[in-house]
Amino acid sequence: MEKVREIVREGRRVAKEDPRRVVHSFKVGLVLALVSSFYYYQPLYDSFGVNAMWAVMTVVVVFEFSVGATLGKGLNRVAATLFAGALGIGAHHLASMSGATGEPILLAIFVFIQAALSTFVRFFPRVKARYDYSLLIFILTFALISVSGFREEQVLMLTHKRISTVIIGGLSCVLISIFVCPVWAGQDLHSLLASNLEKLSLFLLDFGDKYCEAVGNDDTKEVDKRKKDFDNYKSVLNSKSNEESLANFAKWEPGHGQFRFRHPWKQYLALGELIRQCAYRIHALNSYLNADDTKVPVDIKHKLREPLKTMSLESGKAMKEMSMSLKKMTKPSSCDLHVQNARSACKSLTNLLNSGILKEVEPLELISLLTAISLLIDIINLTEKILESLHELASAAKFKDKIERPLSFEKTNAKSIVCVRPIKCHDDHVVTIIEDDGNNDDTSKNDNRSKEVSNHEKYEGSDTHVHIKCVSCGGHTCLCDVVECSR
Amino acid sequence: MEKVREIVREGRRVAKEDPRRVVHSFKVGLVLALVSSFYYYQPLYDSFGVNAMWAVMTVVVVFEFSVGATLGKGLNRVAATLFAGALGIGAHHLASMSGATGEPILLAIFVFIQAALSTFVRFFPRVKARYDYSLLIFILTFALISVSGFREEQVLMLTHKRISTVIIGGLSCVLISIFVCPVWAGQDLHSLLASNLEKLSLFLLDFGDKYCEAVGNDDTKEVDKRKKDFDNYKSVLNSKSNEESLANFAKWEPGHGQFRFRHPWKQYLALGELIRQCAYRIHALNSYLNADDTKVPVDIKHKLREPLKTMSLESGKAMKEMSMSLKKMTKPSSCDLHVQNARSACKSLTNLLNSGILKEVEPLELISLLTAISLLIDIINLTEKILESLHELASAAKFKDKIERPLSFEKTNAKSIVCVRPIKCHDDHVVTIIEDDGNNDDTSKNDNRSKEVSNHEKYEGSDTHVHIKCVSCGGHTCLCDVVECSR
Repeated sequence: MEKVREIVREGRRVAKEDPRRVVHSFKVGLVLALVSSFYYYQPLYDSFGVNAMWAVMTVVVVFEFSVGATLGKGLNRVAATLFAGALGIGAHHLASMSGATGEPILLAIFVFIQAALSTFVRFFPRVKARYDYSLLIFILTFALISVSGFREEQVLMLTHKRISTVIIGGLSCVLISIFVCPVWAGQDLHSLLASNLEKLSLFLLDFGDKYCEAVGNDDTKEVDKRKKDFDNYKSVLNSKSNEESLANFAKWEPGHGQFRFRHPWKQYLALGELIRQCAYRIHALNSYLNADDTKVPVDIKHKLREPLKTMSLESGKAMKEMSMSLKKMTKPSSCDLHVQNARSACKSLTNLLNSGILKEVEPLELISLLTAISLLIDIINLTEKILESLHELASAAKFKDKIERPLSFEKTNAKSIVCVRPIKCHDDHVVTIIEDDGNNDDTSKNDNRSKEVSNHEKYEGSDTHVHIKCVSCGGHTCLCDVVECSR
Repeated sequence: MEKVREIVREGRRVAKEDPRRVVHSFKVGLVLALVSSFYYYQPLYDSFGVNAMWAVMTVVVVFEFSVGATLGKGLNRVAATLFAGALGIGAHHLASMSGATGEPILLAIFVFIQAALSTFVRFFPRVKARYDYSLLIFILTFALISVSGFREEQVLMLTHKRISTVIIGGLSCVLISIFVCPVWAGQDLHSLLASNLEKLSLFLLDFGDKYCEAVGNDDTKEVDKRKKDFDNYKSVLNSKSNEESLANFAKWEPGHGQFRFRHPWKQYLALGELIRQCAYRIHALNSYLNADDTKVPVDIKHKLREPLKTMSLESGKAMKEMSMSLKKMTKPSSCDLHVQNARSACKSLTNLLNSGILKEVEPLELISLLTAISLLIDIINLTEKILESLHELASAAKFKDKIERPLSFEKTNAKSIVCVRPIKCHDDHVVTIIEDDGNNDDTSKNDNRSKEVSNHEKYEGSDTHVHIKCVSCGGHTCLCDVVECSR
């Protein structure tokens, strides 16, 4: 009884994790019930006979979770069946010319050669990735047709029936999978990368705070909780095989939504690889959060706090933005600024280090601190590389520019995402306004705006006009010509 | 033409990479030709008819590369066919009681429910790992038998024939895969872990030299070559999915060679995970080999050279040993000493660092150096953890102790592997003898022995007696009571 309850609980969890699984199960049941109607209705049964079974088999084997996998398998199966059918008939014809004794021997030899050769070709890495199933069906159909052809004399008739039932089964799978609540592998790959980026960003957004605060409270409960919060990024470490199979499926898919037929899926793999590289660094960094905290002197940590926090915060923000722009398929615009901020924080950190505040510290105590710093620098470098790769992807996949419209600053419409515009006031002082997304988590609601506009004052003149006054020169600028990025 | 030549070249490469692939292809061809003889010979054909086709299908689908995968699929298929056959007959019986109109409707409902439910259960992670194929065949057989049963009246007869042909096909696959040049997934998993350990060890054995020498020659060719040599370890980073599937297959395999039926395959996965963790660190370390070399002052590097080299060398040796002991399934014996050596080198490094040699150096220049050191310390910690895990595996899998017999030091028998024995000479000076494997690569033929016996002199008294003389006290010790580890 306990066992049953456990299974039900597991079932609920599986369904909750991805409700499309339930829909998929219903779809499979539906298609199978439909196709098995071949047996029930006399006219259909009369034309196909026992061969109707092939339609049922095709449905069971071909119907996969995503459209790409189903299409790939379906096309593989139909093509292999056609090709093997033709070859099988040829083999049968050739064998039948060699007389009653020679025929079975020749057929056995044909089957042997074809099976051995095809099995060997399945080991080719490029074939294995895309045409493995095709070869399996090729071996199967060739063996069945050339051999059963030996018995039934109407080989052509048999082949014809077999192929048409396979096509009917495959087609119904493909149609249902495309038109009833489709699950696109391409969309999944796209979302997977965006969520991977987000996982890394969440780590980085919190890292600065956690690392610098870690000095005070070292109770184990706190450490355990912190560890759990951060373990999210770990799934990124082993996402390679998942990404590769999704990309393979996606290549079969027709254009859908914002994805064209020849969407640059390869570029996704390159981007995924860079994200994984970054995850490796984060994994190493994570070990410094908990292990050697106590070794770093408190006052040093305190002194380096500001630049360290900014470095991880800004790279985290850049990643968050990249994840958002990937999700929405818009060109990443303000990420460059975040990376730049991270770089300048890096610079001020090195200035601090060079100013000699570490002279008094034992080198051993520095190890953990400097390693964390070095890993952070690495992560910033990788963030830049990821951004580059994302730019490439954006231009290859023709991501939209962000839709820009005049600023309105209406309080009800607080949904503008981070948007950066340098504006010149009358005396050529450059003012930069950063508007953070209202939905972002707390960490990104930092004091960037106040810092950037620190020597400028900002007024809301009316509902639609925003003025800023340059403190240095007293000049006013109307923000009406400054554009806002709306969602 | 060029295309054909390329395919042939690729084929040669695939065959050379693992010659068992060629053998496997021949095996598949053989079994298929055998099973298709069902069609040729009248007596067999008379008893099974068209159902002989199921034997062919089973062979094509079930025959996998490794014994474990074949057995798993075969058992899955037979069990699912039996169970679904019984259920299908039940469903057919139930439906037939509801009259001519109700029968097809009821059958369609049964098929729908069964297919939807089974498809959903396939999403359960634990089911997916081991019984995915079973459920596929379950859906297939149930649909075919309950539905085709609607036509042919002798359902029991049909089911019987189908099941016996499936069993015949499955059995021939399993027998051939076990008795003709078997490929054991368990053995493969075992070798994979050993080779992963070896890859990491090769990196570590060379790292010290490369890192410390890297100061002088910075020409790009050298850097490129070095990069290539080291890239071997990268395959370890993504070995997780491979290890998991091999472990899943291995669970199906009967005892073979040195592996019992319930070999602790789970422990292999734990060990693999630790090895991968170590590979992540090595991946980070590798980036310091090429990138920031120039930043570290030459004289500092020179001063730290000795302990740095020893640290990486000794952890590399420990890994090499572990790889060897895993390969030979003997308990790791002298690894502890290597780890200890690495630890003491670590200590002398920290002493050096504390002695103030870094006082003059800019903190920025230290970053890359200290990070490398910190990563090396991490690697040594992980080496210890890997050793622990290997010890656990060794006791769970009942690895043999190394066969120990008296030292003979015959020159012809130079195949003793690293063997460490502390011996006391008359004045209680401890002498440690390290005998390196004659087959080890050059890096492990280091000057350890001469170092360790540095204040002792070693004589060969006769063919079988080895004496060492303690330089400090002049005492002699006969090595006859020191044991040697033979291969």
